[in-house]
Amino acid sequence: MSENTSGGGAATPEDVSPQEVERLFTRLDREAESAGYHLNPDRRFTLGLIEGMLVNERRHGYWACPCRLASGVKNEDLDIICPCDYRDADLADYGTCYCGLYVSKDVVDGKRKVTRIPERRPPDEARALAAASESPPSRRMDAPSAPASSGSPPGAASPSGSPPMPDLSALNKYPLWRCRVCGYLCSRGQPPEVCPICRAKKERFERLL
Amino acid sequence: MSENTSGGGAATPEDVSPQEVERLFTRLDREAESAGYHLNPDRRFTLGLIEGMLVNERRHGYWACPCRLASGVKNEDLDIICPCDYRDADLADYGTCYCGLYVSKDVVDGKRKVTRIPERRPPDEARALAAASESPPSRRMDAPSAPASSGSPPGAASPSGSPPMPDLSALNKYPLWRCRVCGYLCSRGQPPEVCPICRAKKERFERLL
Amino acid sequence: MSENTSGGGAATPEDVSPQEVERLFTRLDREAESAGYHLNPDRRFTLGLIEGMLVNERRHGYWACPCRLASGVKNEDLDIICPCDYRDADLADYGTCYCGLYVSKDVVDGKRKVTRIPERRPPDEARALAAASESPPSRRMDAPSAPASSGSPPGAASPSGSPPMPDLSALNKYPLWRCRVCGYLCSRGQPPEVCPICRAKKERFERLL
Repeated sequence: MSENTSGGGAATPEDVSPQEVERLFTRLDREAESAGYHLNPDRRFTLGLIEGMLVNERRHGYWACPCRLASGVKNEDLDIICPCDYRDADLADYGTCYCGLYVSKDVVDGKRKVTRIPERRPPDEARALAAASESPPSRRMDAPSAPASSGSPPGAASPSGSPPMPDLSALNKYPLWRCRVCGYLCSRGQPPEVCPICRAKKERFERLL
Repeated sequence: MSENTSGGGAATPEDVSPQEVERLFTRLDREAESAGYHLNPDRRFTLGLIEGMLVNERRHGYWACPCRLASGVKNEDLDIICPCDYRDADLADYGTCYCGLYVSKDVVDGKRKVTRIPERRPPDEARALAAASESPPSRRMDAPSAPASSGSPPGAASPSGSPPMPDLSALNKYPLWRCRVCGYLCSRGQPPEVCPICRAKKERFERLL
Repeated sequence: MSENTSGGGAATPEDVSPQEVERLFTRLDREAESAGYHLNPDRRFTLGLIEGMLVNERRHGYWACPCRLASGVKNEDLDIICPCDYRDADLADYGTCYCGLYVSKDVVDGKRKVTRIPERRPPDEARALAAASESPPSRRMDAPSAPASSGSPPGAASPSGSPPMPDLSALNKYPLWRCRVCGYLCSRGQPPEVCPICRAKKERFERLL
């Protein structure tokens, strides 16, 4: 059995045991169902994709999408770590993610067929440009906890006097959806197939922004 | 056994098998518990309601509330597809939904009794008026994915220069609650009985808007 | 066996049966895993803490943190009812909550050791001051349902004419995070270890506010 190398092409399907694939399948299936997602019911096909994810994990250290070419640099591949940034929009528009690993309920129920779908990921250059122009807040994830985050009682944070209106325009970057049943909020192109909290269907969402 | 008809009154309890009722009971119970909801512990009563939902599904194609009169036109019945738009407010105020299918923890624990509760659903005319006057964004659900939804990197969307302040007033339509423990946000009359994410109780929510 | 008293020191570990501890352990473990949290894998240590919570429940009526001194007045102890308001920030910064009951994935995987961590809870006086200065909306939780909460169709609530820009500054009290995969929103110091909805990892969150 070959040694694990990082960034190399040494990992092959032989490195991944069927038991490991089976275990991850079970876990992903449970997690998917509990959040209103569905793995492709074609079990053999699905196991093949999961094997690909595990091979990529050996190679790169993360679940790079098994149907795309990963750069091997995690920061550049973030958007295609499975589940990818494009899954939910593809599920909404085509009933399947790019790989066919995740599918919509209609596909599970046999009412819709999975076909090849267009690649939604922008080309390398467009992504690089977008990353460069991205406003600082989105990248502040590794900043230390702000005082407000430290669990200090909220009242402490708000200064007295009339505060200037904060810039909330980032809220408008994506549509904001509200589940009419339970009040769940999410910020995405279209509402999810079912509400992950109360299981109300897509049509029960209203758009707030 | 009678044929399935859409919009007709042909479906009767005989069309629905006890196994089917049992299966849906098991599923709804699991989904309820995993999100901090509870089915009525009076099992027989609950199975009767679930049978009613399945009869309605045969009749209309969706789980119209078994305790209300459905129009049979899905778009007009959206608010009473189970779980209905009124469930969570009724649970908060009365410890039960209109039907008694969902109840609060206090009822499960025998600390509170379920009684008949007033109908919270506005009369037909009021609903029709409200629907007519509803601002366009809330109905834009079937619009094609906006560019921002397509998974394009966010930075790309924000124009350079100083953007005009967006209209965020829709955020104020409902109270906005934040779980002090995990930061979960929801937009509803009162906070949920327990946080669906971290299980913190109602009193751990703070109101942001 | 001693009688339950409220606010007294009468409850002792003897009042709590091993079966009860075991049952709560099983429940907390399941709930933790399903939301992306983890109990300390040192089972014996964890059972000891859970016993402490149950003793506190007997004494005070709620799960006061087993590692802190509760006042016995629920309203003053709200922030240290387990899970406490400080857990998630401590998990993010130190890989463990103050007690060591909840730990990060790195700790579960043996990549990080749990050590004693500083107390993040502000001193009594600071908390009292903050509570006193807290703006009214945050405390309005026991107010009766606002009309908007009553499930009335949203359009009904918005007055016609051009509404004045609402004060949304409270949205800025905490960082607002968005999962790039599923659009989950949460309001907290740092993003969660994994998205509780779609399991995407921390680095897949972007900061909106």
